[in-house]
Amino acid sequence: SGKSDPQPAGRSLDFPVSVVLPAGGTGERTGLQTPKQFCSFLGRPLISYTIQAFERVSWIQSIVVAVAKENMDLMTDIIQRFQHRKVRAVPGGSTRHRSICSGVLALREKEQEGKERLALDRPKVVIIHDAVRPFVEEDFLYKIAMAAKEQGAAGAIRPLVSTVIATTSEGYLDHSLERAKYRASEMPQGFRYDVIYQAYQRCTESDFEFGTECLHLALQYCGTNAKLIEGPPTLWKVTYKRDLAAAESIIKETLSRSACIVTGGSAQAAALADALQKAVGALDMELDIIPELKGDNGRYLLKEWNFIQVSVSHPCLSGVDALLADLEAANRALLHPLVVIWVHLSGSDELSISRSMAKHVAIMDLGSAAKLRNILLYGIQLHQSEDTEHWERSVLRAAEITSMLIRERSPALVGQLLQA
Amino acid sequence: SGKSDPQPAGRSLDFPVSVVLPAGGTGERTGLQTPKQFCSFLGRPLISYTIQAFERVSWIQSIVVAVAKENMDLMTDIIQRFQHRKVRAVPGGSTRHRSICSGVLALREKEQEGKERLALDRPKVVIIHDAVRPFVEEDFLYKIAMAAKEQGAAGAIRPLVSTVIATTSEGYLDHSLERAKYRASEMPQGFRYDVIYQAYQRCTESDFEFGTECLHLALQYCGTNAKLIEGPPTLWKVTYKRDLAAAESIIKETLSRSACIVTGGSAQAAALADALQKAVGALDMELDIIPELKGDNGRYLLKEWNFIQVSVSHPCLSGVDALLADLEAANRALLHPLVVIWVHLSGSDELSISRSMAKHVAIMDLGSAAKLRNILLYGIQLHQSEDTEHWERSVLRAAEITSMLIRERSPALVGQLLQA
Ligand SMILES: [Mg+2]
Ligand SMILES: [Mg+2]
Repeated sequence: SGKSDPQPAGRSLDFPVSVVLPAGGTGERTGLQTPKQFCSFLGRPLISYTIQAFERVSWIQSIVVAVAKENMDLMTDIIQRFQHRKVRAVPGGSTRHRSICSGVLALREKEQEGKERLALDRPKVVIIHDAVRPFVEEDFLYKIAMAAKEQGAAGAIRPLVSTVIATTSEGYLDHSLERAKYRASEMPQGFRYDVIYQAYQRCTESDFEFGTECLHLALQYCGTNAKLIEGPPTLWKVTYKRDLAAAESIIKETLSRSACIVTGGSAQAAALADALQKAVGALDMELDIIPELKGDNGRYLLKEWNFIQVSVSHPCLSGVDALLADLEAANRALLHPLVVIWVHLSGSDELSISRSMAKHVAIMDLGSAAKLRNILLYGIQLHQSEDTEHWERSVLRAAEITSMLIRERSPALVGQLLQA
Repeated sequence: SGKSDPQPAGRSLDFPVSVVLPAGGTGERTGLQTPKQFCSFLGRPLISYTIQAFERVSWIQSIVVAVAKENMDLMTDIIQRFQHRKVRAVPGGSTRHRSICSGVLALREKEQEGKERLALDRPKVVIIHDAVRPFVEEDFLYKIAMAAKEQGAAGAIRPLVSTVIATTSEGYLDHSLERAKYRASEMPQGFRYDVIYQAYQRCTESDFEFGTECLHLALQYCGTNAKLIEGPPTLWKVTYKRDLAAAESIIKETLSRSACIVTGGSAQAAALADALQKAVGALDMELDIIPELKGDNGRYLLKEWNFIQVSVSHPCLSGVDALLADLEAANRALLHPLVVIWVHLSGSDELSISRSMAKHVAIMDLGSAAKLRNILLYGIQLHQSEDTEHWERSVLRAAEITSMLIRERSPALVGQLLQA
């Protein structure tokens, strides 16, 4: 399936764990109209990335997203479009705590009739996370779940970035806190189901209205002192407009680590692939070379690879056609736009305008069609040269363009035949 | 001069203000080898952007940067390369407070002989800022300087993003702070010269070694309660690796707001320019159309404009040549790579391979040469069409490519002739 995005073999847990994602925020701080959790990155809303981060963890059985009523249809559509299977959307409340509470209660409910869902156990541990912290990793979730089971509650902390100060009522400095003694409380947090359930049963309307900190409720109403676990910087919350660019950059970097060159088996193409591999490798991207995607090489269809189809002399796009068909069959562009680059080395006999124009038109047409299926097709043309220096410069330029195309994934460049 | 980047006419101050930028940090938190203040954005180190933010404020008379001894040559080179005129580098100390103190003391010194500097007044107010907060604005600096003059000290604050918690020595939650009562202390901060000077005269070795907060020293050693002023989110500090992407995105956005189309006076080119203006305007970028850069239109050379040279039928790059010469004479690419796009509408008579190849080669050569002078030249080719729908699609694509080229400023695409 196109959804497989396996993490390094994770440990397993022998108790059921579910997740609640409160996603009712209004996005005030980004200065954008769309709430942050629904802002799109490479065509997919942020919340889908966060869901994916949990869904790929084998020991997480289900995820409840609590959304504002007006976003329920949008959320349902996201779950369907991106084929999220462990997820259910429930109506959230008017505050963060009310939304979390809705999610926690939903985990008690019998599954609705008529829906073909697995009968799930009541979770032993609930992980609560923010929809706008998409980069949480399995290792850290494991630590939180284990500590929550053992201690009743656990939460992520981070060092303070700024000094925290107390102000007088007139807006003057009263005193500053000693930074080393305090921490920022972040997400995820984990709770034994009975602890978080009781906390919400016992807490006041004022807590529901003005509180933010689940750890505080667990302490106040259940006497549970949460275990605090230092988390990595990737736990950060997409809060301001600038964070959208930061998140996009992390997502793009994750998708740009490796590419697979398909040569079609020709020796000339293999030689060109070798030259490219050397040049792109120097730019810090990993390239594998294979003759075709058949057999064992089908494994390249299962992971986050980008694809480069190389051809020499005959400017034929049939190799690209076949590659596109394989990628589509593997559903590889479901979660991210996929990059395919056609690298063509023109022979010196190939100077007719008709052929040159035909190439431009053919790749533009193929690119426009592929784009509708979330595949971004670009072309790069090299010219044969006896002059070694000229040739090396061309290969280097082709490598730079390749690396840029894979990293940027620009829709505006789809179908272009770039000159190396 | 290429350096003019005037802010909206700011208010003036009737007392001398200078700035100290401690820039001795080691960049641990970004996970990069280069200290953050020296990381490059579009070919220019972050600290140069921060310096620019102060240098363009008319009422700021001088800026002292305190850098680690091993970075002194680098800093001197940056000051020269980017023609910073109000700036002096001094050796910093082994801690943040020692570096700030070096800067404060340097503001008392007589100017060195043999250097042609203005004789400056001892500042009444010193603004202290971080080299890694490049987006501070004149309005806010004005507020800080005024409050510092009146109250002796003033500092930027921001709301807390996360709940702050106190931990037990065993790593459990002790209590959480009520978020509304506390603020994050940020930069800039401002001090009357005598206040910050006395604070550093009186403070202890332990303060120099372990302290971080100048406001605290002013309170403890001069009895000055700083006025706290809520600052905008743009005051944020480039701290983590993800912040590099956020900063780059803000810098690029600032440079991508407007472009100027030069038509050369031809009616056909003006018609194409009109079509582009409409399509690019829909993409949220402002486009002005002018026949040439002479006379009054020379003002376009003074601000942050990007340039689009339009030509019809005759694929002649002489207009682009002249534009490049004007931009170079105006020193416009000193602080940022400048984008120039050649948009060419091919006539239907122009189907000879020699001309098509010649265009590709000519713009690649011109682009390679311009790149050495920090000008990024790209080409876009449209084809005449009687089919209205086809034509409108072409114009839309040209607009999308234009917008993308201006926003991304990709060096790897220099010299390409893209097809619209
Ligand atoms: Mg909480
Ligand atoms: Mg300070």
